Amino acid sequence: MLCLSSLRFYGESMPFGKESYESAETLGYLTSTQALADYAVLIRSLKQNLSAEASPVVVFGGSYGGMLAAWFRLKYPHIAIGALASSAPILEFDTITPWSSFYDAVSEDYKDESMNCFEVIKESWNELMAVAARKGGMLELSKTFRACKSLQSVYSVHDWLWTAFVYTAMVDYPTAADFLMPLPAYPIKEMCRIIDGFPQGESKLTKVFSAANLYYNYSGNKSCFDIENGTDPHGLHGWDWQACTEMVMPMTCSNESMFPSSSYDYNEFGDECMAKYGVRPRPHWITTEYGGNRIDAVLKRFGSNIIFSNGMRDPWSRGGVLRNISSSIIALVTEKGAHHLDLRFATKDDPKWLLEQRKQEIDIIQSWID
Amino acid sequence: MLCLSSLRFYGESMPFGKESYESAETLGYLTSTQALADYAVLIRSLKQNLSAEASPVVVFGGSYGGMLAAWFRLKYPHIAIGALASSAPILEFDTITPWSSFYDAVSEDYKDESMNCFEVIKESWNELMAVAARKGGMLELSKTFRACKSLQSVYSVHDWLWTAFVYTAMVDYPTAADFLMPLPAYPIKEMCRIIDGFPQGESKLTKVFSAANLYYNYSGNKSCFDIENGTDPHGLHGWDWQACTEMVMPMTCSNESMFPSSSYDYNEFGDECMAKYGVRPRPHWITTEYGGNRIDAVLKRFGSNIIFSNGMRDPWSRGGVLRNISSSIIALVTEKGAHHLDLRFATKDDPKWLLEQRKQEIDIIQSWID
Repeated sequence: MLCLSSLRFYGESMPFGKESYESAETLGYLTSTQALADYAVLIRSLKQNLSAEASPVVVFGGSYGGMLAAWFRLKYPHIAIGALASSAPILEFDTITPWSSFYDAVSEDYKDESMNCFEVIKESWNELMAVAARKGGMLELSKTFRACKSLQSVYSVHDWLWTAFVYTAMVDYPTAADFLMPLPAYPIKEMCRIIDGFPQGESKLTKVFSAANLYYNYSGNKSCFDIENGTDPHGLHGWDWQACTEMVMPMTCSNESMFPSSSYDYNEFGDECMAKYGVRPRPHWITTEYGGNRIDAVLKRFGSNIIFSNGMRDPWSRGGVLRNISSSIIALVTEKGAHHLDLRFATKDDPKWLLEQRKQEIDIIQSWID
Repeated sequence: MLCLSSLRFYGESMPFGKESYESAETLGYLTSTQALADYAVLIRSLKQNLSAEASPVVVFGGSYGGMLAAWFRLKYPHIAIGALASSAPILEFDTITPWSSFYDAVSEDYKDESMNCFEVIKESWNELMAVAARKGGMLELSKTFRACKSLQSVYSVHDWLWTAFVYTAMVDYPTAADFLMPLPAYPIKEMCRIIDGFPQGESKLTKVFSAANLYYNYSGNKSCFDIENGTDPHGLHGWDWQACTEMVMPMTCSNESMFPSSSYDYNEFGDECMAKYGVRPRPHWITTEYGGNRIDAVLKRFGSNIIFSNGMRDPWSRGGVLRNISSSIIALVTEKGAHHLDLRFATKDDPKWLLEQRKQEIDIIQSWID
């Protein structure tokens, strides 16, 4: 068995070296269909070079890589006998999944932990704006948020907090982890413990700062934060391009979420992309190329041998396949799992349900190979 | 039900107008994968504009279009519920089908009709070369083959005859037709009747010329032939490009064929393409992208709802799917059928087996829709 997961334009595989991100000219090769074709050529060549022509290939991937794994099995069944698509939000396109579900799911994670925690965060945004609006407010915020340089815009604080809360939901793993940032086990519980630990009367901004501090500074070695020029902790420079071309996932914040409510406008988003890259997104391309609408009906009669695994703590799970589609297109759902938890390294602290999930996955894959 | 068959870069759909064939820059968009993606976008948009979202779509195609139809069903099952792939040689790639089978099949068509006919054609190539080699030979050939202008190269005559015999085998239809050229019903029978009608001692070149005359001049209004600057009767300017990029179908002539025996060399072919278009072919790309090896095993478990129809008079049938793969991937084979005969207009002279074949196709498609 050969296992595969790699992404063109990410990691080391830069087709045009350092200039790969320079313009639409070179970025044009950063597409999901090209990535799939790369895999096809690579696997075929690997099999030949390793004299492994008869070896069955199962593709694995998490997140975007999980989508690619599922799509690869659908488009190249002659090359991969099956796919494990972990936390693959293949239904997060068009109007298949309600646009508010992602941020609703983030919010539920916090609400499940503690209603006070949820409410503090929900109310903190107004407080943030109010402080910023008053005289000397930005200076005050610079202090509260321990900014290395004086803050110029309240939106940088907004984004800094937002990122902490959203990414922590994604990586709300049952064991200590170092995926985006070093974090303790069940970090949302820890964040909420911090928020709930303050006296009721304490400023909400102090509370949310302390929670975000857990995300950005769990190791405790930072004395200040570069809030205004923060780099994307994901390091996924290519994702912005993909979001502006094919990976268009509309998201809104409902009134029930812990974020300021927001809407989504295709044209507005398109204008941003036009300004940034000189291209307009194709919002319906992914469902045209890979399907997604009525996926139960289509895949029941067509595809086979795919595991869709999702952890419900991960907001991406809401755009995933959460129910079995056929006897060989299986949904494995864990209530306490997070973003592609099953694909993380095993640790001695892994809970029993995670061990069981991994065993299930191995058993299913074994049955495909048999 | 919407039916669809159209090809980018062919007919009217020229993406860069008259410059579409100018260079690899523009021709680069002439690929099968792009054609399939076009269909996906087009069908989705048609359904939306015609308020036909719920209407099942079945794709039809013959020859290259038949390959596209089959591949479309495999790659876009969420858009087309099934495909009728007529005379689609999807196995004519790599080493799936023996390289000599195409010209062996052409030869069998003639041999089946008359052994003398087969032998006259088989022996005519040597005679052609012998005449060309002798003094005044080209002038002699110019007369025998009624060339409008004096012939400069024997190879033009060779190609002219070759084309007549090969294309007549493809279009050996049971009714009079005007697909590439106007031709009578069962034109091979007519060609062989002409060849066999000559006295034994007559020159073989006169015989094969007369047979080819049926192909090029059935209407009888040509007094001479533009042999040296003949245009491709197919009119498929784009096909050469496709053959030089992805549609690499290696073919050889065996000693048993009625053609001079020949081999095939990837490098030599690649050099020609390099000189012509500045690109090298990717000989294994089609099987990487669409499969083909062990197609029985792969499609049995994966695909569904495809009819592969083939007529055994058509040499392309040898690279087609000639046996049922599953209960819904069906091979319909007619002994006396030719190149995508089932997709031709119905005529009052259609034989019973053709009417039956078409009825079978309709019944199968009806069962998909039900």
